[in-house]
Amino acid sequence: MQTIISSRTRSVIVGPDEPFIIIGERINPTNRKVLAAQMREMDMTRTVQDALAQVEAGAHVLDVNAGVPDGDEPAIMAVAVRAIQAVSDVPLCLDSSVVDALRAGLEVYQGKALVNSVTGENERLEKVLPLVRKYDATVIGIANDETGVSMEPEVRLAVARKIVERAADHGIPRENVLIDPLCMTVGADHKAAVVFFETLRLVRRDLGVNTVCGASNVSFGLPERPGINAAFLAMAMHGGLTAAITNPLEPILMTSMRAGNLLLGHDEYAMGWIRAYRQRPAQPA
Amino acid sequence: MQTIISSRTRSVIVGPDEPFIIIGERINPTNRKVLAAQMREMDMTRTVQDALAQVEAGAHVLDVNAGVPDGDEPAIMAVAVRAIQAVSDVPLCLDSSVVDALRAGLEVYQGKALVNSVTGENERLEKVLPLVRKYDATVIGIANDETGVSMEPEVRLAVARKIVERAADHGIPRENVLIDPLCMTVGADHKAAVVFFETLRLVRRDLGVNTVCGASNVSFGLPERPGINAAFLAMAMHGGLTAAITNPLEPILMTSMRAGNLLLGHDEYAMGWIRAYRQRPAQPA
Repeated sequence: MQTIISSRTRSVIVGPDEPFIIIGERINPTNRKVLAAQMREMDMTRTVQDALAQVEAGAHVLDVNAGVPDGDEPAIMAVAVRAIQAVSDVPLCLDSSVVDALRAGLEVYQGKALVNSVTGENERLEKVLPLVRKYDATVIGIANDETGVSMEPEVRLAVARKIVERAADHGIPRENVLIDPLCMTVGADHKAAVVFFETLRLVRRDLGVNTVCGASNVSFGLPERPGINAAFLAMAMHGGLTAAITNPLEPILMTSMRAGNLLLGHDEYAMGWIRAYRQRPAQPA
Repeated sequence: MQTIISSRTRSVIVGPDEPFIIIGERINPTNRKVLAAQMREMDMTRTVQDALAQVEAGAHVLDVNAGVPDGDEPAIMAVAVRAIQAVSDVPLCLDSSVVDALRAGLEVYQGKALVNSVTGENERLEKVLPLVRKYDATVIGIANDETGVSMEPEVRLAVARKIVERAADHGIPRENVLIDPLCMTVGADHKAAVVFFETLRLVRRDLGVNTVCGASNVSFGLPERPGINAAFLAMAMHGGLTAAITNPLEPILMTSMRAGNLLLGHDEYAMGWIRAYRQRPAQPA
């Protein structure tokens, strides 16, 4: 199954037989003072810098979150989307828990956007899915609902199935839904990643849809976070994950992603790998 | 299923519910001039240094290969085993294609050794398995035979099954056999790791035995080899691999292994991870 996300002039294909897709997470004002202050003033200088830096580092899609405290989120989202699309052709992932912000972004977005996100909560489904349908967008469905985040993979699978089915009811084909099996913090629950991997396996086996997840949170609170995130990414790729929202400016993570593509047979003749690393002398293993 | 490898005073457990086992590969004279020259003269200075350095870096078992060109391999193997066991209590993996060298090592070894290796070739099976039985050792069974290395996972599985069954005929229980699904070089065949991962899956599903592989060769001939090896290790761990013969002196590899343990739920409260990395300040992901 292939999911296509696009800007006006560029398409990205998400799928099990495609190279892995990195969705850059940096355009998000949470814990970023300068970005937040600028966004609040509708100044997109840092936003555009972040966009270009992430694309330069290898991001295929950019997440855009305009959730500034006391900011006019829908207005900021629209301005941010326009500013990024004026300087880059990578497709965007519009990220908000505020439905009006998603709508404002979709209204100005040129191309087939990725909407981040909808959960299995009935109220969210009925608000977000009509928007996704109206703008012929794609959407991330997160495997939790009114009852919270289950640590039972079968329960998460049931939520994911509900999202896919409800999307179909709204006329959204399943290839336009990416399921997020949800990875919690392993420092808080040592089974967090195991539950994620098992949910991923079930979603692929039973629903066959493409998958995505936030791949930075797993290491929260622990030292040497990039090392955990890089291994997590490789393991999730082996488990069939097709895309991740993460930080492309972290070199070890991009190395892990490129190595994952190479090892999964998605980098024939190792062309991508060699292009990325041939500047450096070969190192003994 | 648990495989126990031991020295006189220390046991290592290999199994799907255990932390991953690293078998240090450095004590091998191939492409190592000083080590080879010393071994040829029965000088174990470098051998002992390599042993201690690998244990310090986190190796759980040490591979010992005494295959020096023009050297008396059985004699060197025996001296090397004695020298290493005099300074370290980690179990050893006796590595040779020369049956007399394996025998010489087993004769002097104190504990339950790991024999590296037997293939599915009839002649090898009939020579190596009696030794494994006689010394109550464990053995690595490599999934190739007289016909060479197949790129068909089902064919490799059949060879692995033959090894496990032939071992049973010799009175060797299946928990004493570790199957190596065989990972070839991804630079030479972009499906090399995919075939490995699928063989690993089949061996676990159909035979249920523990698994091991050489995890350095996959990146041969490519730049930035440690990055490939680290991702390969994480992916193989996710696929259920229980041990690898690799270089513990490569930090990124050990980070990947520790992160793999953490993410697979084999490092409760992240104690192992924190012990390894708490010296460094926490880094943003």
